[in-house]
Formats: sequence, C-alpha cells, structure tokens
Amino acid sequence: MKFTVSKEALLDGLQKVQHVVSTRTTLPILSNVLLVAENGRLQLTTTDLDVGITGSVEAQISKDGATTLPAKRLVNIIRELPASEVEITVDAKNVASIQCGPSFFKIIGLGQDDFPPLPDFEGAKEYRIPQQLLRDGLKKTAYAISTDETRYVLNGIYTSFREGKLTLVATDGRRLAMVENDLDFPASQEVDVIVPTKAVQELQRLLGNDGEVLVRLSDSQISFAIGDHLLVSKLIEGNYPNYRQVIPGDSSERVELPREAMLETVRRVSLLSSDKSNSVKLVFSANKVEVTANSPDVGEARETLEVPYDGKDLQIAFNPEFLKAPLQNLDEETVYLDLIDEMSPGVVRIDGSFLYVIMPMRVTG
Amino acid sequence: MKFTVSKEALLDGLQKVQHVVSTRTTLPILSNVLLVAENGRLQLTTTDLDVGITGSVEAQISKDGATTLPAKRLVNIIRELPASEVEITVDAKNVASIQCGPSFFKIIGLGQDDFPPLPDFEGAKEYRIPQQLLRDGLKKTAYAISTDETRYVLNGIYTSFREGKLTLVATDGRRLAMVENDLDFPASQEVDVIVPTKAVQELQRLLGNDGEVLVRLSDSQISFAIGDHLLVSKLIEGNYPNYRQVIPGDSSERVELPREAMLETVRRVSLLSSDKSNSVKLVFSANKVEVTANSPDVGEARETLEVPYDGKDLQIAFNPEFLKAPLQNLDEETVYLDLIDEMSPGVVRIDGSFLYVIMPMRVTG
Repeated sequence: MKFTVSKEALLDGLQKVQHVVSTRTTLPILSNVLLVAENGRLQLTTTDLDVGITGSVEAQISKDGATTLPAKRLVNIIRELPASEVEITVDAKNVASIQCGPSFFKIIGLGQDDFPPLPDFEGAKEYRIPQQLLRDGLKKTAYAISTDETRYVLNGIYTSFREGKLTLVATDGRRLAMVENDLDFPASQEVDVIVPTKAVQELQRLLGNDGEVLVRLSDSQISFAIGDHLLVSKLIEGNYPNYRQVIPGDSSERVELPREAMLETVRRVSLLSSDKSNSVKLVFSANKVEVTANSPDVGEARETLEVPYDGKDLQIAFNPEFLKAPLQNLDEETVYLDLIDEMSPGVVRIDGSFLYVIMPMRVTG
Repeated sequence: MKFTVSKEALLDGLQKVQHVVSTRTTLPILSNVLLVAENGRLQLTTTDLDVGITGSVEAQISKDGATTLPAKRLVNIIRELPASEVEITVDAKNVASIQCGPSFFKIIGLGQDDFPPLPDFEGAKEYRIPQQLLRDGLKKTAYAISTDETRYVLNGIYTSFREGKLTLVATDGRRLAMVENDLDFPASQEVDVIVPTKAVQELQRLLGNDGEVLVRLSDSQISFAIGDHLLVSKLIEGNYPNYRQVIPGDSSERVELPREAMLETVRRVSLLSSDKSNSVKLVFSANKVEVTANSPDVGEARETLEVPYDGKDLQIAFNPEFLKAPLQNLDEETVYLDLIDEMSPGVVRIDGSFLYVIMPMRVTG
C-alpha cells in the first residue's frame, strides 16, 4: 500500500472520524483508524462498535491496499508535519512509513482483517432530510439530553417520522426540548427511534447548511450519509416516555423576551444563586420582569428588564442553567415564555417550530 | 465607603491582584481583596501571607473607607456588568452594594481590621533594575525552576547582586538556566537571595517593557515596586547549591542551530519518544544534525536538519522537554549548543548573557 496525499486533506479527514475512537478500549484495534487506498481515494473508518464513521480524501495511489493505524497518534503526527505533501507506504507487516519533507516517521499498525465492519443497511427504510433542517433541530434540542446513565432511554434524541413530520425530542425529566418539521416520506415508513448522544454529537460535527442527509433505518441501527461521510449507530432500545403529556395546555400569560438581553441578565444574576437552591426568581409585573437570586451568607443579585407585559403579577423560579440553555441555542431575537402559575411548568417558544418545557423550582422568600 | 469607578479599570485592577488569592485557605479573609478608598484612588490588596500585591485604580470617591470582599466572586461579578459606570457603597457591616445600569448586587464582606498588613521595608536595601532587563531575565530562567517540593531551596529563582552584576539562576538538578547582567548598586549591598516561584509568576505578570523596578530587601522579605503596583514576598531560606560547578568548562564542539527550526524538529520527533526513555537523540555529522526517537512497539521518528557543523561525529540524547524549553523561551534567531562528549552536559548559549546547562540521557541503540 502506497499513496501520496496532502497534509491538510488527510488531517481534515482524520479529524472528522477521530472522535469516535476511544483511548480506553479493551480491544486495541478500536483505537485504530482503518485506511483503505483504492480508486484514487483514501477511505478512513473508525468505530467503537456502537458508533462508526467513514469518509474519504483524495490521494494519489501508487499501490492499493488497506491497514489500520493508531488514530490519535496518526493525527498528532500529521498535524505537526512540516510540508504539504505526505507520502505513506505500508508494508506487509502493517508498518507505515510516513515521509514529509525532512521528516520521517514509522508507526506500527494492525492488520485490517480484524477491524470490525460497519453494519449493512440493505433493504432498510430510507428518509431524506435537508441538512440544515436536521442541524438546526439538533442544535435546538441536544442540550436537553439526559446524562443520567441509569435512565438510558433518555440518553439520546427521540426521533419520530410520523404523520408527515420529523419530530426531535430530548429531555432529562426536568426540562424538555422539541422541534417538529414537515417532511416527505411514505406513510408506510412511519417509525420512531432513539438516537444515542454520541451519534448526535458526531452528526452535529458532520452536518452542513446545504444538501440532504440520507437516513437509513434497520431494526436496530441507523445511518446518516452526508456528502462523502457515512455515520452509523446502534439505536437505543426501549420505550421513550410519553413526552406529549408533559407539555402544558393553555397558558394564562405570555411574556415576550428579548433573547440576548434575557440571557445576559440571567447569567449575571445567577452569579449569586446559592449552590443549594440553584435558582433564579422571575417576578413579572406591568412591563417588566425582575430577575433575582440570593445566596445566604454571600449576597444577592437583582436586575430589571423592561418587557412588554400586561398580564397579572406572577413570580416563578427556575434553575438558571435550564433557563439559559435554550436562550443560548436559539437564534431568534425574540422568544416567548408561556406561564400558567408559579407551580406549573413554563414553556419557551419562538415564531417557528420549537418548544421547551421547564419545570419550576419552589419560590422562596 | 462609597465610590464610582469604571468597570474596565476596576476589572483590570482586580485581575492584577487576584492570582495571589487562594480559594483553599483556612483563613477566610485571605480569600478577600482589601479595598481602601481615599485620595481619589481605590487601593486593592491581596495576600496569602507569603506573597502580597497591592495596586490602585482611579475612582470618584464620595465617602472614604475600607473593607474586604471575596476576590473571585467580585471579579466574576465585575466582569459580567452591563455598563461602564459602577457605583459601590459599603455599609458599616461590610455589606457592599454594587449598582451598574439595571444590575444590582449585594455581597457580604469582612472587616478590614483582620486583613494581614503587608510587611514594612523601612531601612531595607534598595536596588533599581530596568523592567525589561528583569522581565527578560525571568523569561529566560523561570521555566527551569524545580517543582519538587522536597527540594524547597530550588523552588525559586536564585537572585544575586554581586560584583556589579545581577545574576538569575533556576535549576531542577537536571538542567540549569542562568542570566547575568551588569547592574549599578553600592558594593556594600552585595547579597544573594532566593525568590519563590509564586512571586516570580506574579512579577512576570506585572513587569512591562519600560521604566524601572525598585527592589527593596529586608532580612526575610523582598518587595518589587512596579509603577502603581507593589509585590511583596517572603524569601526562601536556605543555601542555594553551588551552581557554578555545574557549568562545564571548555567545550570541544560548538553547533550553531536555527532556533525555530530546531524547536519544530524536536517537537515532531518527540512524538515518538517512548514514555520510558523519554529522550530524543541528536546525531551530529558534517553539516547536519539528525534527530531521532523511538518507542518500542509503537514506532520511530527521524528528521535531518542542515546546520553549519564541521566538528567530529558526535551523538547525544536529551529529554525533549528540557531541550524545547529554552528554545521556546528565547527570541534569538540562532542559538549555540556547546558539547564535549555524549556523557557530558550540553550548554545552550546565545550572543548575549544566557546559558542553559542540560544533562544528557543515556544513548541507546
């Protein structure tokens, strides 16, 4: 196996697949990236048996072949190379010689035969989603995924293809984010699955603003084809909770909030949230919201924001991190906060397909 | 106590003194910054009992006074404030009210009476050092300070005022950096002291390129007056080892090295240094140096650099971190490496007052 490739292209290609590789694996070959040189391209593949990514870069191949090399070490070497043209030769014992300008590296690889193949999606259901729509949907929901491993069905994004809509939902039991968009697919292909966090993170790295993603679904696996790249992942098995029942019905008050100003205010005031209560209080009255926090023995913070509000006086407390998360991940200038009373969940909405349910904290003082 | 101050000036002032403050202190007031408002200035002071810094910022003072406030928390609040004008009022119970635009914060402080005073330097010896000379000298030596706490006399920079020279030395027993410069001071004031690492770090933050530092020395303390700021520190007690005997005599070979290219080469090749040997080998022959490393079961690296060399063939191995450190901290285009043989220390020099002794590793292979 012998090929010449540009340093920049190879580095970019490796960086797109390297995050899947775990350094703490009991199976040494999973620390490696599979390199296959053929047809003028060098294909790069990584897997941790749950999630796998493959992509390719252009290369001048003088001898076809395949091998696996330690992924992190290879990235570290390629990143430091002093010139643009890199020549890599791999011998029959999977020893790779890397030549670039005055630099020469030899690294010892493992045979490609033991590298686990990515799963096959023959006969799988197919869906086409605009990249931007999926990227935007993941950005608006992924931060609400639960990190509590004991509730494994929540460690991913619920992804539903039903009634002509793609619905994405993430929740950790204390807040829930949902995005719903129209999507064309055959009625016979209605299904819902849970895509695990790691696949969501890799997907977010790969998605761009243009073109489509081709999604393939088998019984226990999902794949996303994005340009030259293919991401495959096991699905989370289990029943996602009935999230619809968490979404409150009619609200009694709607507050229009300037997103960035509200984010800044909550960020400042939360500096004085106590570790124990970990809450900020929102007090709504005519044309203003006062945001307050206090921390016994430390101090307190208070800030008033002018907002168009003519509803009843109302106060409600939230975990500041949960309040900041959607404000940070939305782009809209204005968001709406729909409230019922101080004990009922609040709902953040925008002019568009998004909602975020946030449980209140007990108001003190 | 009541004053108005600009956010930017206050933040800058706090950032210059805040690093001294330890968050893990058994004496709560040491987490606080002392604020004294008088004569149109707000003075800010911190101390950990070993090192202390004081500085001041311009303020409009409507009521003189003093208090202490939690330093890290105050910095976090001031950094996030939404406007430039900050009004701070402190009541008799040391509760500070901070008003800035729509933001209001209240934080609870402690009385200034319990704040440990900085030591007095009356009757101390005085020295004047150009800021740039001291800054440059510390940059060229500080990285060689030992971090081994059991060898506490090495946990600082040996600072000698003798024979019309200021000499700075740092060593960890495996490498030694020294800078020596002419300096005017009375012959009666010859002395040498050890300035601890933490003071060196703070000093490096405060030093600029222009003006002088006024150094004051008492028996157990040193102070550095730099513009508006004063840094005081305890000295390390004990005898610094006789570093002169570590410096090799006449070398048999001198190699001229392009500093940046050599740094890059060592950085790349060291990617294949084994954890165990942790060395790179330098092989000098006619007009070139070959830098190599190898790591059993992983691979090897090799790079050749053209250098003007007509001495005898010679090879020597060094810890790559110790070889990189002076190359990173010097500015000169060219450095010299003086060698005797593979078992003797090498010496890095420049056209100017600097030397760096580095112990060789055993050459293998």
